[in-house]
Amino acid sequence: MADIGFWGLGSMGMGMASSLVRAGHRVAGHDLRGVVLDGGMDVAPVDMDAAVLCVLNAAQTEDVMDEIVPRMKSGAVVVACATVPPDFARAMAARCDGAGLLYLDAPISGGAARAAQGDLAIMASGSPAAFDAAAPVLDACASTVHRMGDAPGLGSAMKATHQIMAGVNIATMAEAMVFGITQGISPERFMEILPSCGGTSWMLENRGPHIRDADYTPHSAVDIWPKDLGIVTDIADASGIELPLVRAALARYREASAAGLGREDDAAIAKIYAKQAGVELP
Amino acid sequence: MADIGFWGLGSMGMGMASSLVRAGHRVAGHDLRGVVLDGGMDVAPVDMDAAVLCVLNAAQTEDVMDEIVPRMKSGAVVVACATVPPDFARAMAARCDGAGLLYLDAPISGGAARAAQGDLAIMASGSPAAFDAAAPVLDACASTVHRMGDAPGLGSAMKATHQIMAGVNIATMAEAMVFGITQGISPERFMEILPSCGGTSWMLENRGPHIRDADYTPHSAVDIWPKDLGIVTDIADASGIELPLVRAALARYREASAAGLGREDDAAIAKIYAKQAGVELP
Repeated sequence: MADIGFWGLGSMGMGMASSLVRAGHRVAGHDLRGVVLDGGMDVAPVDMDAAVLCVLNAAQTEDVMDEIVPRMKSGAVVVACATVPPDFARAMAARCDGAGLLYLDAPISGGAARAAQGDLAIMASGSPAAFDAAAPVLDACASTVHRMGDAPGLGSAMKATHQIMAGVNIATMAEAMVFGITQGISPERFMEILPSCGGTSWMLENRGPHIRDADYTPHSAVDIWPKDLGIVTDIADASGIELPLVRAALARYREASAAGLGREDDAAIAKIYAKQAGVELP
Repeated sequence: MADIGFWGLGSMGMGMASSLVRAGHRVAGHDLRGVVLDGGMDVAPVDMDAAVLCVLNAAQTEDVMDEIVPRMKSGAVVVACATVPPDFARAMAARCDGAGLLYLDAPISGGAARAAQGDLAIMASGSPAAFDAAAPVLDACASTVHRMGDAPGLGSAMKATHQIMAGVNIATMAEAMVFGITQGISPERFMEILPSCGGTSWMLENRGPHIRDADYTPHSAVDIWPKDLGIVTDIADASGIELPLVRAALARYREASAAGLGREDDAAIAKIYAKQAGVELP
């Protein structure tokens, strides 16, 4: 059993921290409000075996690193789960290496329900020693670990690539569903027909019902996408890569966020399409 | 058993016409080169029970209509399968109505293999009488008939809506896969991981392997998409609807077509992305 410090107790982080406690580890959970999950770790951070960083972004990851890296014991591992640019992951890994610590570049996927069940997918890269040291965390939190290689950054690169698919597919579903409404196809009929056709996607089948049922409970919020697709376009800008679909989707997510929909479920991007097209959603 | 005239013997049409012959109907198959499938219909067009139009587009549909509408017997049905604008379908239905004929707005989906097996999905709208008269065709060619309602145009509207999903999802898959390559994620790894993730789509799972395996045998060609997404944007232009993802994808398909890739499999849109990004595909 390990002593694990956990930073970031949002919908994903709380589920992961709870999975660690359930697996028998001693956990101290923190977020910006201070310690808020007492999972039986009464040791000081200097004795942690692992620190899991499930915070919002690169800036928050770096803030926690500033706090803990000077105090962690040699050979302990930082498991970094936020979606961040691959270059940032490489820089953080180098910093840990210089301090005698291990670093696993370990973005997560799967949503809050799977986080609570210890059933996440983790796209991870790092040294074999980092994987070994992180094993208690991976075993408790994930049903699938995609080992992307030894080089930090590959985990984050895979996550960014995945977010292109996920973020654009949500926007595409919204664009098609609203187009259908303008042509006399109801969301009910759309959702009866599309899932069995070649045009379907996981996001259509998962998020489409949110629009049909007018349920924008934020299982995954609009504001995730300006952040994650912004990381993607930052990478692309630095490399001169054109990503026209990502840019089109990102613009719509930013419109949704600016319209005050940021904390609604990401299916609420359909509201921007519906307003522009002058049609009513359910 | 019915006497059925069939126009358009491409990869979809030949499969459908063969399914009609296999079901016991008497079929005369035509295309731009004249009669090319002798399915035992030795009667004149004036005696046809049904005419199936599986031609390329609205212009070819209208050409065949010009030829056959004045000569078909009262109560016979025109089954129109090309992807066309809903307004065009409504105009053709009105024309048939004025000539004492029935019209079924009946776009098809499923690909050549399913066409050959009589296993298509048909998104159809028209009067109950038109559905009844078209039953021999629907029964022989389709495993799924989505009845969209009595009004011609709803079948074409559903097809256009579906093509938004299908066409944009192919382009999204290509954009993400090439982005992944630039970040060190191989197409092999991409296809190992993505299908089990929330970012997956039917098109990713179906077309992704074509890129991974460098197999651009045209099961569905690039040139389908400038045509079908062009219909979608024509509808949107007429109604003032913004479709930013469709427009971004359409631009890429047009680039692919202009680059001489029009007759390759539509997964070849990835070649445009790869060239721009300066990476090699398998």
